[in-house]
Amino acid sequence: MSIPITKKKHNFFAGPAILPATVLKQASAAIENFSNMGLSILEISHRSKQFVEVVEEAISLTKELLDLDDNYEVLFLTGGASSQFYMAPMNLLPQDGTVCYINTGTWSDKAIKEAKLFGNVNVLASSKESNYTSIPKDYEVPTDATYIHMTSNNTVFGTQHHSFPETNVPIVCDMSSDIFSRPIDVSKFGLIYCGAQKNMGPAGVTLIIVNKDLLGKSGRPIPTMLDYNTHITKGSMFNTPPTFPIFVSMLTMRWVKENGGVAAMALKNEAKAKLLYDEIDANPMFEGTTHIEDRSLMNVTFKMKNTEKETAFLEACANADCVGLKGHRSVGGFRASIYNAMPIESVQVLVDVMKDFANKNT
Amino acid sequence: MSIPITKKKHNFFAGPAILPATVLKQASAAIENFSNMGLSILEISHRSKQFVEVVEEAISLTKELLDLDDNYEVLFLTGGASSQFYMAPMNLLPQDGTVCYINTGTWSDKAIKEAKLFGNVNVLASSKESNYTSIPKDYEVPTDATYIHMTSNNTVFGTQHHSFPETNVPIVCDMSSDIFSRPIDVSKFGLIYCGAQKNMGPAGVTLIIVNKDLLGKSGRPIPTMLDYNTHITKGSMFNTPPTFPIFVSMLTMRWVKENGGVAAMALKNEAKAKLLYDEIDANPMFEGTTHIEDRSLMNVTFKMKNTEKETAFLEACANADCVGLKGHRSVGGFRASIYNAMPIESVQVLVDVMKDFANKNT
Repeated sequence: MSIPITKKKHNFFAGPAILPATVLKQASAAIENFSNMGLSILEISHRSKQFVEVVEEAISLTKELLDLDDNYEVLFLTGGASSQFYMAPMNLLPQDGTVCYINTGTWSDKAIKEAKLFGNVNVLASSKESNYTSIPKDYEVPTDATYIHMTSNNTVFGTQHHSFPETNVPIVCDMSSDIFSRPIDVSKFGLIYCGAQKNMGPAGVTLIIVNKDLLGKSGRPIPTMLDYNTHITKGSMFNTPPTFPIFVSMLTMRWVKENGGVAAMALKNEAKAKLLYDEIDANPMFEGTTHIEDRSLMNVTFKMKNTEKETAFLEACANADCVGLKGHRSVGGFRASIYNAMPIESVQVLVDVMKDFANKNT
Repeated sequence: MSIPITKKKHNFFAGPAILPATVLKQASAAIENFSNMGLSILEISHRSKQFVEVVEEAISLTKELLDLDDNYEVLFLTGGASSQFYMAPMNLLPQDGTVCYINTGTWSDKAIKEAKLFGNVNVLASSKESNYTSIPKDYEVPTDATYIHMTSNNTVFGTQHHSFPETNVPIVCDMSSDIFSRPIDVSKFGLIYCGAQKNMGPAGVTLIIVNKDLLGKSGRPIPTMLDYNTHITKGSMFNTPPTFPIFVSMLTMRWVKENGGVAAMALKNEAKAKLLYDEIDANPMFEGTTHIEDRSLMNVTFKMKNTEKETAFLEACANADCVGLKGHRSVGGFRASIYNAMPIESVQVLVDVMKDFANKNT
């Protein structure tokens, strides 16, 4: 089958989201013939030498990119971050223990709901009253909490934790939308989890990074598949893993490494975000939707001062091959997701559309 | 990237397993440009019109191929059949209810272990004493059981249920390795589940077919992501689904339909299995490992009368481009998995290798 020729779009989707062009080419090729086996990667045993090497490289790249020490185990599971909302407390929280939450909207809200099945929940701080346009900062973490849960980046509202609390209580963090986008001090974290489909790969695999010291203390029976220890013991191969999503995630991590690692990603991400936020702040037709100090470098949310022009602006974007810019229904306006794989050239195209639109409409 | 030219292998892997060549070509093309969007299928929103159409077609094809009535809901989740070992009793079995199991080895064993967390487990019949070389038939299903659980085809031992018990108790069935391989009377089943990676698609998606009448009766709190009703209400889109595995499964179902549906698959599968079993029975060097009446049409297990020749035979297979034939470690010998997508021509190649090997070695 010949591939239809269509101009490549500038992809601002929030997730599943843009992946590096070279990764897509390698992924497509591996579906026809993987590792010169004469077989597709979709139709080989997960226990074949060639696929075992893929999983091992994915684990090793995760450890290298995030500078993990031997206390941390790396797992590739399924079920998305939404499954970690209950798996984290099921595995970590004793029934009489207390977990603290920082509520930055949507995903935190959902995580809080699930934790209530497993122990005491203390919502330490929330930005709900301001419709989650900021990140709460004024709180103290009780020293007797089992752990504190945070969502590092909120894809819906476009806010991001640019620092994490100073505390000896382990942080459990949903990093679905900013993993591998910047260096982090992993020693603060007891558990990090991420749905892959933003900065890490395609939908269908969930990365778990867990400090082994936190496991085995919940005191409750756990179904085999939901016990982190099951998957640690079997190197994520207790059952058939999502082979292709893991493969593409591994390719994406290789790309991050080849492009300078997470520190280099952070510099590029800062430059892209600055380019776009500067235009939002300078352009007379647009304004940001979040507190400036809490702005996300991954999901840039903005709106028009005159909302009647929104449809016309989205049309102008589409005419310039910029797609995926409609804001989440709970915020409105626009959202430009500019993850690792997004080139600054695409952000420049969007900025040019904004400038041009303002010139023609003011 | 040019795709290296390698001769296509005859793929007898047990799973992840062979997929139709046309499906692989379409899958590969969609990774470069899906639905002429100028985007990869890996990087588009699961809520985009184009992907919603994929899920809707996958659901509709499942209903059409299996002739499901409106009592049944079709879900595409993750976690594999191994996750259904606990999700089925968690959703269906009250704490004081009893579930019956027919133990045909490996997968049944694992399913039994998980159910014990949720209610009373009654193993009605087992072929454990004969190392699972047969399917138990001599049992009665208690009329007060909540449900009875069966594994329709055992990939490891190469046995298959060629009929299901006459009972009014709903059957819950793991059909991971023979879904869409033959017509079934779905009205006997309360729940059918399948990991995709044998007859249905690549690893990373799990098909669930559930009779709605059985839900909401367990009386226990269930985490949101583990409640079948969550996913029924949201059409498998409560959270980001495994988009690419669903897409490839949909393509494979389309292929089944275009090739005559499950009745036509059954005829082809019977012909392939007959060709191979006839050779096993006729060839002086080989013998089958299961009771003849319980032989699987999907996973043909056999061994050599003189086990010292096994390595040489596997080499002869490899020289003829036949791969994936080593038996499971708990059975030994050989296993030829001949799922829907396996052409009879590939089975003939294997049969020819067996004949040739016998000619040269006897």
